[in-house]
Amino acid sequence: MKIELTPIGIIHSPFKEPEDMPIQPAGAAGVKGTVEVFEEFHPGLNDLDGFSHIFLLYHFHRSRSFNLQVVPFMDSETRGLFATRAPKRPNPIGLSVVRLDKIEDGLLHIQNLDILDGTPLLDIKPYVPEFDAPLEVRTGWLEKAGKTVSSQKSDDRFK
Amino acid sequence: MKIELTPIGIIHSPFKEPEDMPIQPAGAAGVKGTVEVFEEFHPGLNDLDGFSHIFLLYHFHRSRSFNLQVVPFMDSETRGLFATRAPKRPNPIGLSVVRLDKIEDGLLHIQNLDILDGTPLLDIKPYVPEFDAPLEVRTGWLEKAGKTVSSQKSDDRFK
Repeated sequence: MKIELTPIGIIHSPFKEPEDMPIQPAGAAGVKGTVEVFEEFHPGLNDLDGFSHIFLLYHFHRSRSFNLQVVPFMDSETRGLFATRAPKRPNPIGLSVVRLDKIEDGLLHIQNLDILDGTPLLDIKPYVPEFDAPLEVRTGWLEKAGKTVSSQKSDDRFK
Repeated sequence: MKIELTPIGIIHSPFKEPEDMPIQPAGAAGVKGTVEVFEEFHPGLNDLDGFSHIFLLYHFHRSRSFNLQVVPFMDSETRGLFATRAPKRPNPIGLSVVRLDKIEDGLLHIQNLDILDGTPLLDIKPYVPEFDAPLEVRTGWLEKAGKTVSSQKSDDRFK
């Protein structure tokens, strides 16, 4: 069974190439960008401006293949792909929580984005802590690495 | 441009029909289910068991259409679709944070799921609070409704 998706917009960011971009929104504090939602979908944006944070789902459009064993940016050991956020995945869908500053004519002004310029947008969902923020969380191999994520940059290993 | 996805597994849950299921994981506390990952993807599951919570991305396979204006389960007013988590979307991708109890032979034992039995799995990502849990969050129209989400059940409005 195949599932077919169609972009509903385009994400604009200062990151023109995969190298040297922050690897997660937490490492992209203050980075500003916009999400251009195609006009036919504008009515779906009503009420979204009440939310300070949103999930963006997008297509990792530079990903052409994947490997089930990867060495993540924040580690030196090989890990299972699904225990990482690496962009090259069987279904190359990216997920980021970003800050929503304002919406003007279908253009979302966002902050803290870790997304490549020109990335096709697939969906927007409101971020709701009661749904999305569990308590008492363990983060495996990232437990130590996570503390340094805000200063970590990507490199060319997922090119 | 079309993007083609292929399921990497199947989600098994006690919810056989869209009616009467919890509308979000927070309303599904204690509900147990499993995620069957297809054998070819098992090597990608290494290290995942270190994480207590994971994102599941899946196909809302019962969704055949969408409406950009919806009345959400927790509200009586019409809202923009992207300000809701309604399943009928331009790209019908579902997103849930669930608790991961253990992994046995490619079978993930999970808790707190709000997902229909037989749902095709698209991706698994580790949940990392530093990436995924912003602070100082506003949740618009849900600000009052959110407080009652744990007792809210779905109905047939998105059939």
